[in-house]
Amino acid sequence: MPERIVLYTAKICPYAQRAEIALLEAKAPNVQYQIDLQNKPEWYAPKVNPASKVPAIAYGGPDVPPDQPSPESVKLAESLILVEFIADLFPESGILPTDPVLRAKTRFFIDGVSTKFVPAWHAYSQGKSSAEEFYKAVEYLQSLLPTEGYAIGPYSAADIAISPFLGRARVTLLNDFGGYPAGEGPKVLEALSSGSGRFARFGKYLSDVLARDSFKATFDEAYITERYTARFANLRK
Amino acid sequence: MPERIVLYTAKICPYAQRAEIALLEAKAPNVQYQIDLQNKPEWYAPKVNPASKVPAIAYGGPDVPPDQPSPESVKLAESLILVEFIADLFPESGILPTDPVLRAKTRFFIDGVSTKFVPAWHAYSQGKSSAEEFYKAVEYLQSLLPTEGYAIGPYSAADIAISPFLGRARVTLLNDFGGYPAGEGPKVLEALSSGSGRFARFGKYLSDVLARDSFKATFDEAYITERYTARFANLRK
Repeated sequence: MPERIVLYTAKICPYAQRAEIALLEAKAPNVQYQIDLQNKPEWYAPKVNPASKVPAIAYGGPDVPPDQPSPESVKLAESLILVEFIADLFPESGILPTDPVLRAKTRFFIDGVSTKFVPAWHAYSQGKSSAEEFYKAVEYLQSLLPTEGYAIGPYSAADIAISPFLGRARVTLLNDFGGYPAGEGPKVLEALSSGSGRFARFGKYLSDVLARDSFKATFDEAYITERYTARFANLRK
Repeated sequence: MPERIVLYTAKICPYAQRAEIALLEAKAPNVQYQIDLQNKPEWYAPKVNPASKVPAIAYGGPDVPPDQPSPESVKLAESLILVEFIADLFPESGILPTDPVLRAKTRFFIDGVSTKFVPAWHAYSQGKSSAEEFYKAVEYLQSLLPTEGYAIGPYSAADIAISPFLGRARVTLLNDFGGYPAGEGPKVLEALSSGSGRFARFGKYLSDVLARDSFKATFDEAYITERYTARFANLRK
């Protein structure tokens, strides 16, 4: 029987959303505490995560308020490690399949998200590379997708790893936020999500992962749009 | 019952050694095929690993010669994914402990190896940063070590992830190879391995991981010294 889980999170953060989705997929009882990333509480780094980032989990220990963490709970960090931790605690969640080959394929897709997709998206959205460079990373992930279903077939940690970034990329492109040429965002979004042409398979995948209940329940589009409006307001000036 | 494992590897490569150690720790029957990284066989990228790197595993399929890989075997790559794959195939190996918290700690140590130790070592050994910068990464890992034993207590994937880099760092420093100031290598090695002073705990850990049978059986010091002599011969010129 898993012990008490307190998740330190922030609605804006894609890494934190990974842990939130995993907890929902696992139907894991948990307490969540929002960290204001612009104004972190003083106790957070010394008592929860020395790296001062979200997400982090306090696991076990006494039933204390989240803003008074106990030294008796185990503190864990790094989003992908937390997703695997939740998968290990709740193996019946299917977050990680039981077959070793499918587990390896899940992790290989995640490696592509971390080493190719996320860096390519950040470079493109900040205006530091072309749409074509970003498209190459999308094409790479598309090449790993099976004919149907999610990243490895059944829904898994692979989808949990990428969907917070896809949700935020969609908001960014839709609103033409970022450092790429003005007007390009909606066109790139159309290319990626049309479900035909060069990204036909990826478009279907994008639509599937963003429609997942656990994604929708943990993604506050209005809030993220508002925060991104402020963040990107002056990026092209 | 696990299926046939063919490992594509190279003695020089620290990433490949991770997979070799994991197979030995798991007592996993396997066939190994050396890839000459300076002159890769034409069939390797199209038939085994599109990224053209080692290590890679061909899993299952018919009993074919390794240089004639069958399309029926599953091809897997990325060293840390292969280590977890071997751990999943052979759970009794202890490469990954069964307790979810210890598994998370194993992965957190590995994250420190990948994101802090290895980049800091490469920067230092190539003369692009100071010994002090490298020491900070060592100190970080040292802060994660328990009072005794390996990275998480029992021998695990955490030790498998770092030991090939520690073995190569030892050879490099001992022979004063690299881009840092001439004469500094042996002094840095002494500081790290003396077992006293700033790196007392790390020195003991270093000695423990390099003494592990599975490490020694997969580390050809004479070969690596010879290859490094050629590689680093002109680095300070």
